[in-house]
Amino acid sequence: MCQLLGMNCNVPTDICFSFEGFAARGGKTDDHKDGWGIAFFEGKGCRIFVDEKPSIASPVAELVRSYPIRSTHVIAHIRKATQGEITLENCHPFRREMWGRYWVFAHNGDLPDFQLGSTKYYIPVGNTDSEKAFCLILETLRTAFPYGKPSLRELYSVLQQVTQKLASHGIFNYLLSDGEYFFTHCSTKLCYIVRQAPFVAAHLIDQDVTVDFSELTTPSDRVAVIATTPLTDNETWTAIAPGELLAFQDGLPVQI
Amino acid sequence: MCQLLGMNCNVPTDICFSFEGFAARGGKTDDHKDGWGIAFFEGKGCRIFVDEKPSIASPVAELVRSYPIRSTHVIAHIRKATQGEITLENCHPFRREMWGRYWVFAHNGDLPDFQLGSTKYYIPVGNTDSEKAFCLILETLRTAFPYGKPSLRELYSVLQQVTQKLASHGIFNYLLSDGEYFFTHCSTKLCYIVRQAPFVAAHLIDQDVTVDFSELTTPSDRVAVIATTPLTDNETWTAIAPGELLAFQDGLPVQI
Repeated sequence: MCQLLGMNCNVPTDICFSFEGFAARGGKTDDHKDGWGIAFFEGKGCRIFVDEKPSIASPVAELVRSYPIRSTHVIAHIRKATQGEITLENCHPFRREMWGRYWVFAHNGDLPDFQLGSTKYYIPVGNTDSEKAFCLILETLRTAFPYGKPSLRELYSVLQQVTQKLASHGIFNYLLSDGEYFFTHCSTKLCYIVRQAPFVAAHLIDQDVTVDFSELTTPSDRVAVIATTPLTDNETWTAIAPGELLAFQDGLPVQI
Repeated sequence: MCQLLGMNCNVPTDICFSFEGFAARGGKTDDHKDGWGIAFFEGKGCRIFVDEKPSIASPVAELVRSYPIRSTHVIAHIRKATQGEITLENCHPFRREMWGRYWVFAHNGDLPDFQLGSTKYYIPVGNTDSEKAFCLILETLRTAFPYGKPSLRELYSVLQQVTQKLASHGIFNYLLSDGEYFFTHCSTKLCYIVRQAPFVAAHLIDQDVTVDFSELTTPSDRVAVIATTPLTDNETWTAIAPGELLAFQDGLPVQI
């Protein structure tokens, strides 16, 4: 299994604090040693760092920990391989272009009996169940909306159907974004926290690090952090219910 | 205009030495300040670093300069914007998936009157002529070979046709690779060098740095470096003729 970390904000925010705790699970406080990756959207552009090395031993992870890249949509993943070798092409997040936007996907779980049939637009490069599931999601959406990106409500409905179909094959927690929409699906384990004014200090579970967000934020900032398990031990995280597909906007889950 | 740097080798090799000189042109010895990017293939996997900051001021470029990523197929680019804003989505190299492989493309030149019509598979995310040209190349290849990746000879023939069509719109020097095939097209300016035994010392033009390759290589290593202008001042670089589309394999241009 793997672990997921996502962030959605109303203003570009750096993820250094959360990534510090998350990256420790890649070989230090947990055994997710089979690669990691992180995607940052900056407008329509997208920067992805992936590495098949454990995140605690990766010079690229060190860069991400120390270099504050500000973004409104972030998706990160540390991997413990269940299917597919430990190679670069099997590292999450995966990225494809659809409707003139980059779409990014990371998965925690296992879909042991899922087979991807023939597809017209999207073909996996690696051999993970996760990338196959991502290809099916995009193929389904693109076929349903051939003329361009639909509204959030229209897209959500089709995404929910294909998600349920995939989730019936096993465990399917995921994060999906194109830098505008941001979706999280909980199959077994996923939680989130919304940080907004009044900001307080937060303390990591996986590293003895505290950050006082009141010193780093303005009163109108709002940040949602989504993770497989809580990253801090002095805040209340909300568990997402199994089967629930959430859409986040400007740092909050929205009603569809 | 921009500058291109490519590398194709018979064994995974790091590009630190060449990148050191090349990155200096991004704001130090030359004025290519509008972003940069580099793609490394590792098997079917592909690692891309892009930044809209000048390469001499980019922490990500510093990582690439100091961290020896070994690869057989590398494409790098520093940008001086002619079309499209200075944003992340307009940084080269661009990447798309085709036939279950990642394809990577970088362009030096300007195609002022080229318009991309309606496409079925590939839609630009940014607004550069370069990404539009890349989309047309992939669209043309995928339409010509709908059942999967063809032989080098078959692909070369169709690529040459679409390249000539695009080159008629302006200046179109480019590098294109999927981690197996490696193409270079010279429209106005592109040159290469093949380094192989007996290896000697090479001295950069843009930085006072010398590397003695005989200390770092084995006798069977062979490395082709392709660049807009020569990177070293004590080696003989071969100019590629305008209009010439070359395919490199295992560190050598091959006859098609």
